[in-house]
Amino acid sequence: MSADTRTGLQLRSLIKTSGELELSLVSLPTPEPGPDEVVVRVEAAPINPSDLGLLVGAADMTTAKASGTREMPVITAKIPEAAMKAMAGRLDESMPVGNEGAGVVVRTGSSDTAKALMGKTVALIGGAMYSQYRTVRVADCLVLPEGTTPAEGASCFVNPLTALGMTETMRREGHKALVHTAAASNLGQMLNKICIKDGIDLVNIVRSQEQADILRKIGAKYICDSTAPTFMDDLTAALVQTGATIAFDAIGGGKLAGQILTCMEIAANKNAKVYSRYGSSVHKQVYVYGALDPRPIELNRAFGMMWGVGGWLLFPFLQKIGPADGARLRQRVLAELKTTFASHYTQVVSLQEALQLSNIAVYNKRATGEKFLINPSKG
Amino acid sequence: MSADTRTGLQLRSLIKTSGELELSLVSLPTPEPGPDEVVVRVEAAPINPSDLGLLVGAADMTTAKASGTREMPVITAKIPEAAMKAMAGRLDESMPVGNEGAGVVVRTGSSDTAKALMGKTVALIGGAMYSQYRTVRVADCLVLPEGTTPAEGASCFVNPLTALGMTETMRREGHKALVHTAAASNLGQMLNKICIKDGIDLVNIVRSQEQADILRKIGAKYICDSTAPTFMDDLTAALVQTGATIAFDAIGGGKLAGQILTCMEIAANKNAKVYSRYGSSVHKQVYVYGALDPRPIELNRAFGMMWGVGGWLLFPFLQKIGPADGARLRQRVLAELKTTFASHYTQVVSLQEALQLSNIAVYNKRATGEKFLINPSKG
Repeated sequence: MSADTRTGLQLRSLIKTSGELELSLVSLPTPEPGPDEVVVRVEAAPINPSDLGLLVGAADMTTAKASGTREMPVITAKIPEAAMKAMAGRLDESMPVGNEGAGVVVRTGSSDTAKALMGKTVALIGGAMYSQYRTVRVADCLVLPEGTTPAEGASCFVNPLTALGMTETMRREGHKALVHTAAASNLGQMLNKICIKDGIDLVNIVRSQEQADILRKIGAKYICDSTAPTFMDDLTAALVQTGATIAFDAIGGGKLAGQILTCMEIAANKNAKVYSRYGSSVHKQVYVYGALDPRPIELNRAFGMMWGVGGWLLFPFLQKIGPADGARLRQRVLAELKTTFASHYTQVVSLQEALQLSNIAVYNKRATGEKFLINPSKG
Repeated sequence: MSADTRTGLQLRSLIKTSGELELSLVSLPTPEPGPDEVVVRVEAAPINPSDLGLLVGAADMTTAKASGTREMPVITAKIPEAAMKAMAGRLDESMPVGNEGAGVVVRTGSSDTAKALMGKTVALIGGAMYSQYRTVRVADCLVLPEGTTPAEGASCFVNPLTALGMTETMRREGHKALVHTAAASNLGQMLNKICIKDGIDLVNIVRSQEQADILRKIGAKYICDSTAPTFMDDLTAALVQTGATIAFDAIGGGKLAGQILTCMEIAANKNAKVYSRYGSSVHKQVYVYGALDPRPIELNRAFGMMWGVGGWLLFPFLQKIGPADGARLRQRVLAELKTTFASHYTQVVSLQEALQLSNIAVYNKRATGEKFLINPSKG
């Protein structure tokens, strides 16, 4: 831990025009807090899939090499030529990483509201959380309930609000049950807990028997394995039983989104009385919120005309629902932080350890059950 | 023309479980009009792409054979095995065809409103228009202005309301300009007239120089040829100039929808100040309303997270906007029936002529500039 709060290390990701990714640590002066600001010593920040996108970008991490010192490690890796176009917006710009985290307020600005936060454990969102110190506005701090550690509060934005955003979107758009893919993920387990608690039928699509077992153990009722030969029939049966007509898809590429729409259409037509060459009159929606499969999405349109596929992202969703509803969702997260919204980590690493090749190889797999927490204040 | 209004011919399309399409004429008694109904002698009904879907279904018309008599012709053709699954909903059911048409009221029910329509020329929608007589509710008749022939009023629903539905959807969903594909079609030309009149920027995507010329002649300003090597650059330039962020796509299959979204994203990023790995904050939408290309839609997602692709269909749209706004759109069509919404036909055929192989070969090509009108009362 830095003995002095005036300077601190920050993890940076840089993609050079030459086609090279460089991950490193920089030592930065901590910005002085303004009257309504505080300095937070970050003690926990998760590595989410959404962080990996910025951290490693399109780099081929099988080419990764370590250099630098133990204290200030440097990782370099090559970006495939074809992927450089998509990186155009961030070239030669050293970027801080880490969407969310939690820590302790160690210094405050002059206002009473700022001073009131001294010593409090707070959760933060907004980037650059893989830093030892962050100077932030009081308004951007979510004060955690007494007895909550930074590790317990580190993931209280992205996954919890995304999972709540899914059931909220389902209701707002007039659906009564939902489908989720890559459903055994940390997020998927959270969504199961929400749906069980709220009495919402959730169809979980997984890619292995092992993942199915994880979900069955936490009480999931509808689980379909996309690698099973009976997948389409299994999914259709679950859709008939639940009436789910909206899906949230973390996979993105390949045929899965289209298969979900096709099964929804078959399920809808089981109740249709009249033939229409335009298909059923039931609107079927897939929101793609991840890209575990980078291939193109392939839609064969065997599902009539009443369908939609689109991107879904937490921040535009929060913007759309407005501050009052956003606050309501955040309050629920705080109230159920140690139950419904508890996150589990397989490893806690320092900033330096986060830049060890052996660790990168594990967290960059994005495997179900593997989740890293960075503690930037860990020595 | 049938001398007696009590019976009339009707065109039927039948797909048999054996995998055969059969087109034929049947002679039917004209249903007696109830108090609030009238009998219309149909004199004009267009063959729209949306009619062809029901008429020939998935049949391979290169296998078509003619039989029957000159007065009662029969056409048969084979359905490819792989396409039969999609026909499941209509097997062995002899289906009437023809979404819209116009004709003259020749008999009425007993109510005053019904009697008031005697002799009037009315437009109709709702199927089975490839019939000599249709018994319909007064409420379903759109009385055409004095001096309008059935041929002039035959297409006053599908294409005009679809084109108006596009600009209406554009406005309702917060876009300021739009993109249209297969833009030299009858519908596309209509859309250009609407946009020129209403001062809306329209980016026309065509597939040949010949189609570009058709549109240039009627005053289209933005025309991009998707077969040109500079297509992506041309489209991006047009999108930067117009700010179009919504597209209506009649093609459906292949990469075009994704290319449009990609160019919209590039255009949006020309004005972006900050890099976001999620892409621009501009929502980009493609509505697929046709299927000129039956291949799967392929989306490579080089366009961030703020996007949507979905089906768009006239009737759900009209249902969504409600009867008052629907009436407003219909009134505009009537007011501009001989200008903005004028349709042009290359041939007028009888029911029997519509079932001649040589004619089917022409209208089933769905070629730009070729449009048939059926006059079921033509002897």
